[in-house]
Amino acid sequence: MEAHTTHCLRLDPEVREVALKRMRSVKGHLDGIVRMLENEHTYCVDVLKQIKAVEGALDRIGDVVLQSHLKHHVATAAARGDADQMVAELMDVLKYR
Amino acid sequence: MEAHTTHCLRLDPEVREVALKRMRSVKGHLDGIVRMLENEHTYCVDVLKQIKAVEGALDRIGDVVLQSHLKHHVATAAARGDADQMVAELMDVLKYR
Amino acid sequence: MEAHTTHCLRLDPEVREVALKRMRSVKGHLDGIVRMLENEHTYCVDVLKQIKAVEGALDRIGDVVLQSHLKHHVATAAARGDADQMVAELMDVLKYR
Amino acid sequence: MEAHTTHCLRLDPEVREVALKRMRSVKGHLDGIVRMLENEHTYCVDVLKQIKAVEGALDRIGDVVLQSHLKHHVATAAARGDADQMVAELMDVLKYR
Repeated sequence: MEAHTTHCLRLDPEVREVALKRMRSVKGHLDGIVRMLENEHTYCVDVLKQIKAVEGALDRIGDVVLQSHLKHHVATAAARGDADQMVAELMDVLKYR
Repeated sequence: MEAHTTHCLRLDPEVREVALKRMRSVKGHLDGIVRMLENEHTYCVDVLKQIKAVEGALDRIGDVVLQSHLKHHVATAAARGDADQMVAELMDVLKYR
Repeated sequence: MEAHTTHCLRLDPEVREVALKRMRSVKGHLDGIVRMLENEHTYCVDVLKQIKAVEGALDRIGDVVLQSHLKHHVATAAARGDADQMVAELMDVLKYR
Repeated sequence: MEAHTTHCLRLDPEVREVALKRMRSVKGHLDGIVRMLENEHTYCVDVLKQIKAVEGALDRIGDVVLQSHLKHHVATAAARGDADQMVAELMDVLKYR
């Protein structure tokens, strides 16, 4: 699950703060869906809408992390000498995104 | 946000239980991502992988709810007389899914 | 590939005309990408942009066909008595859409 | 549409050949969908299946081009000095992919 925590590359601290703040907000959104699902009057399409909204929020957090990764780690890969590995692991995440 | 809680159509109780159980599990997964983002050693690609996994879990919950909605509410719409409205609201959720 | 051409349900003629017209336009767009790929000066991101544009056009054609299918065939399924089959085959197409 | 044909970066010739070959095959697949839509007996779900298959083929071509772009152009961006521009234009294509 956390294959790279041992190498020197880390998520940029400022981006990490932004992602953390937004992820906590997604958690609150998810709590709302849980309450919705606890209610026997809940309508299917309302659940589908909320799931879609949460996925949109997660996509946007992913975009912020991806942008930072491209800038700080992928764009410097040739200079660092690990381009093949960096591209392979990134493609693995981007496929069927 | 919950435009249809007033009409008579409701998410099937059994499906609601399944979705609720899985959604609570997604909440636990999200807690894991929050902890990951609190850790200054966290690597970008590990975050991206976890976001992708959570979105996959949400997709599968959405599929279960959608299947139930199609069976219990959309397939019966012509007989009930609200096909145009049911299709319009469903398309709104499915577009760019 | 065309498992259902034998049963009585058919794509609505008007929708079929719209989809046909747009699909021919997508074909023209694809010809443009082929020419782009025949050109040795072509830049990767320009190809990615064109692929994304074609997929957007295909998504929109799919939405028109899906909307018609929901209205004419899924909403009438309970009345016709084939709801389970109709929902199963539709879910198969919508999954991971 | 082809904003970068003037700069020096080009799609790798070998990858371009692979993408070209596959894109011509997608064109053949699209011809099949056009013929399908010309047939008045065509069933909605068969069209949706074919559209999904073509989008899958386009995704896979896009992945090959993206992988090559990451390796040959993005991984070398810091060394070349255009990382910010390269990342911005790539994010524009990857968003909501």
